[in-house]
Amino acid sequence: MTQSNGPVKIDSKAVAQTLLDQYDTFLFDCDGVLWLGTHLLPHIKETLDLLIANGKTLYFVTNNSTKSRAAYAKKFASFGVTVSEDQIFTSGYASALYVRDSLKLQPGKDKVWVFGESGIAEELKLMGFDSLGCNDPRLDQAFDITTSPFITEGLDPSVKCVIAGLDTKVNYHRLAITLQYLQQPDVKFVATNIDSTYPNKGYILPGAGSMINCVAFASGREPAACGKPNPNMLNAIVTAKNLERSKCCMVGDRLNTDIRFGVEGKLGGTLLVLTGIETEKNALDTSGDHPLPKYYADKLGDIYELIN
Amino acid sequence: MTQSNGPVKIDSKAVAQTLLDQYDTFLFDCDGVLWLGTHLLPHIKETLDLLIANGKTLYFVTNNSTKSRAAYAKKFASFGVTVSEDQIFTSGYASALYVRDSLKLQPGKDKVWVFGESGIAEELKLMGFDSLGCNDPRLDQAFDITTSPFITEGLDPSVKCVIAGLDTKVNYHRLAITLQYLQQPDVKFVATNIDSTYPNKGYILPGAGSMINCVAFASGREPAACGKPNPNMLNAIVTAKNLERSKCCMVGDRLNTDIRFGVEGKLGGTLLVLTGIETEKNALDTSGDHPLPKYYADKLGDIYELIN
Repeated sequence: MTQSNGPVKIDSKAVAQTLLDQYDTFLFDCDGVLWLGTHLLPHIKETLDLLIANGKTLYFVTNNSTKSRAAYAKKFASFGVTVSEDQIFTSGYASALYVRDSLKLQPGKDKVWVFGESGIAEELKLMGFDSLGCNDPRLDQAFDITTSPFITEGLDPSVKCVIAGLDTKVNYHRLAITLQYLQQPDVKFVATNIDSTYPNKGYILPGAGSMINCVAFASGREPAACGKPNPNMLNAIVTAKNLERSKCCMVGDRLNTDIRFGVEGKLGGTLLVLTGIETEKNALDTSGDHPLPKYYADKLGDIYELIN
Repeated sequence: MTQSNGPVKIDSKAVAQTLLDQYDTFLFDCDGVLWLGTHLLPHIKETLDLLIANGKTLYFVTNNSTKSRAAYAKKFASFGVTVSEDQIFTSGYASALYVRDSLKLQPGKDKVWVFGESGIAEELKLMGFDSLGCNDPRLDQAFDITTSPFITEGLDPSVKCVIAGLDTKVNYHRLAITLQYLQQPDVKFVATNIDSTYPNKGYILPGAGSMINCVAFASGREPAACGKPNPNMLNAIVTAKNLERSKCCMVGDRLNTDIRFGVEGKLGGTLLVLTGIETEKNALDTSGDHPLPKYYADKLGDIYELIN
């Protein structure tokens, strides 16, 4: 096989074998790569099994912060795929790591205000951080500044950071109290990820970045972002797992997040699959401002189909 | 009295009388100028009566889109101040005027999706426009893409515009459906106003602009803004009331919205009052990127107190 200058399509056994020979670690985005919502894509289980049989190490890297790693492991199990929690990195987990390891907040002492879902609070709890906000049912009440317990009881001075992510329970109460914490200059501001939208059952819905933008604009502050393509997330994985970047391949369905994450993170390889939002035209388009993948495939399952 | 180069403080009978002699029309911002929330400021009624007794015409111009002009007239009445609806311009009314007069949407045929409160929908209705969204109780239900009636029944093809404003009932359902309409390129996008925050009982809360930013970022679109300081609002008032700009004075408590509105709208005068968010230091600060007022006063009621 001759390596061309542009992305190489995985359309023969030889190319698929080259990919396998080149890398010892594969990092996968999940939605759009392994599954679409609740529907596993073709030959995913077989491809993951093939990689494991060939001695590869697999990690799963998602910008979805609504579920914890434990909840993700259960989702894998529901598809009959055995994946342990320590193979999974969510943007909620990456945010909690950032709070502990980069911001140096102290578990058991410093607290975090969560504008987002339980996937963030659960990861914080595992690290020993108390969190406020999130699913607190008092935030489901209509906001009234004279009766909100978060106002009448005063802001908690132990809160040293706001983590903001996708929150499908977003309401004015949550926005207003999040803003009160962000108005305190010593409270740090962390975003799980900045995707403006995400696809769901053929529709484009508001993503974490859109909701975070609301409180960012209101407070006049910019958050530190943790999810793909931010290097914070990759650095956390590389450090935790002691990875050699040149031997890693990032597999994803989005040029601007997954492939950028792999290219800017100086991983040895990137593989774009076309089962998510990108087309073959996009994969080969050199005129955009996004990086190009080293490899691309119609679907991840092609690796299994071509090798066998 | 010698006219200085900087803003002139209204601190003597002579200056107050000069102000009265110079203009025949006064446009007032409301919150922070006439009242703070539900509390009328000192000598407001007496000052307005004095202006009327001197033959002045008064208009009231607010970026608050949550109340209709009719609701505003009731608020004035609750303070014992008689103001008719046609003296009141809200950003919701300005948005409805913009939809009819600038976008040329057709009442009775074209519809508007409202991400905001009843102050917008009521003004649209008075012009003969049907609106969707807004207070529809079905939007208070948790969002589920498979069961939301706004998805299962399909988007309404008669909707030709989205008006977005402050919505204290904001939730994921409202954001998601608003985004579906904004993804249609032929649906126009109008913002009542773009204030990032607003003050309430000593707290700073998320304003219309912050919430609009969420759907603007998600859709990748920028709305046409109607409220102060946008000239759309002043043009609508000047046209509707056949005003001579040089004989008008804008009175407000915010340099960046009210005073900018008057200066950029080429009104004869501007008067900043210090009962809202600005200080005397701000009023005289030439280093900012905001315009300076022609006059300023500790409070609007000083006009009455100085003249009498």
